[in-house]
Amino acid sequence: MPSIGIFGTGNIAYAFAKAIVNTEYKLAGVCGRNIENSQIFAKKFYCPIFNSINEMNENIDIYLLAVKDDAIEELSEKINTEKLVLHCSGVQSIDILKQKNKGVIWPLQSINKESFIDFKNTPLCIESNSEPNLIALETFANSLSQSVYKITDKQKKYLHLAAVLSNNFSNHLLALAKNICDEHRLNFNILKPIMIQTVENAFIQHPKLIQTGPAIRKDLKTIDEHLQLLQNNKQLQSLYELLSKSIQEMK
Amino acid sequence: MPSIGIFGTGNIAYAFAKAIVNTEYKLAGVCGRNIENSQIFAKKFYCPIFNSINEMNENIDIYLLAVKDDAIEELSEKINTEKLVLHCSGVQSIDILKQKNKGVIWPLQSINKESFIDFKNTPLCIESNSEPNLIALETFANSLSQSVYKITDKQKKYLHLAAVLSNNFSNHLLALAKNICDEHRLNFNILKPIMIQTVENAFIQHPKLIQTGPAIRKDLKTIDEHLQLLQNNKQLQSLYELLSKSIQEMK
Repeated sequence: MPSIGIFGTGNIAYAFAKAIVNTEYKLAGVCGRNIENSQIFAKKFYCPIFNSINEMNENIDIYLLAVKDDAIEELSEKINTEKLVLHCSGVQSIDILKQKNKGVIWPLQSINKESFIDFKNTPLCIESNSEPNLIALETFANSLSQSVYKITDKQKKYLHLAAVLSNNFSNHLLALAKNICDEHRLNFNILKPIMIQTVENAFIQHPKLIQTGPAIRKDLKTIDEHLQLLQNNKQLQSLYELLSKSIQEMK
Repeated sequence: MPSIGIFGTGNIAYAFAKAIVNTEYKLAGVCGRNIENSQIFAKKFYCPIFNSINEMNENIDIYLLAVKDDAIEELSEKINTEKLVLHCSGVQSIDILKQKNKGVIWPLQSINKESFIDFKNTPLCIESNSEPNLIALETFANSLSQSVYKITDKQKKYLHLAAVLSNNFSNHLLALAKNICDEHRLNFNILKPIMIQTVENAFIQHPKLIQTGPAIRKDLKTIDEHLQLLQNNKQLQSLYELLSKSIQEMK
């Protein structure tokens, strides 16, 4: 089976390594900027350390650049290979890779080193620059996860935007709600069941069809009361107004 | 055990009735404006129909006004009783009830007639106007759910605000994300695992500590790209900017 060389020793590198060791692919080695972190990584996954990029070339079939978004391009420039080179970023285009054979394998999940990630159920969004490369990439991705989606570079940009809107911004709204609960000595966990259910329902039918709350009801009295409660936080007031307006206009 | 009389035959009335029939409380009857709906309700829960409010008084110990927010006050004015009268609204104050013995039992969950609600795990927020009434209400609430929270009228206002911010507005962000996915032929389900995990994590640690995305990273290049993608939707552009600013200021 093909061998995978991983660049980087951060969260994404760990998540991929954990997943790879459960497949028939071989984790051929790791290459990191920090030797100490590379040693910890190598020890954890029983794989060798590559001290230089050139050392890798003879041993591996797929280069997995699991490094920070803004480090991918520079690293790619240092790699001289005909083998398949992949990055894992949702932000960066496939075009920043300089190689002839290249692709993207983007796990759409929040990945921390500590948290248990069920990689088998993590959506992997893949794209490549040629049909044979895409086949190799798809085979690799299918071995790691049951949820593999072929997307184009343009689709990736919109998917990333959709993820920011829904996921990053919802998390922030939860943070704002948590602050309000803390300030008024309310147990934030009261909101957990409704949040879980709302998210689950949103994937059963279009969330606009199950929108609830004062904005969709045009309950101006409650909206005014809420704006009153937020009178010392002009920014949150504006946010509340804009979101309410947006809900009403989607209706 | 005390007998409960339910006013209303909508979603909330159904959810309470389903929960009550599994307790030692007795579902004494239903009183609805629409006779046909009352008959369906009565048949489903094997309970009598009360054709008038006066008919109820001798038979029940707790009046449960499970009617629309803006129908509570008018209904309350028609009820002449010394028994405990409850409404179920998160929006309305306890003060709109005219009775001497009153309270609120607010299920903080999205409730549809069709959807299966695990009422045992639905948070019930309760308040009452006297200690003995609160004890009776708490006993009743504890029989229905494992998650009962005593709150004040002021806390209820802030909790409702927090629920709108987190739940209603997140649902709308999901709707916006769904529209983007549909427009670009992306499977919206790709976003499900990250959304579920984000919500679950938000109740483990303060969501501001696990904020991800371009705003918290001050990744201006990605933010600009996203604003470009939204150039034909000025309102969503403003929303994106305001939410990004709010994230950066919370940091």
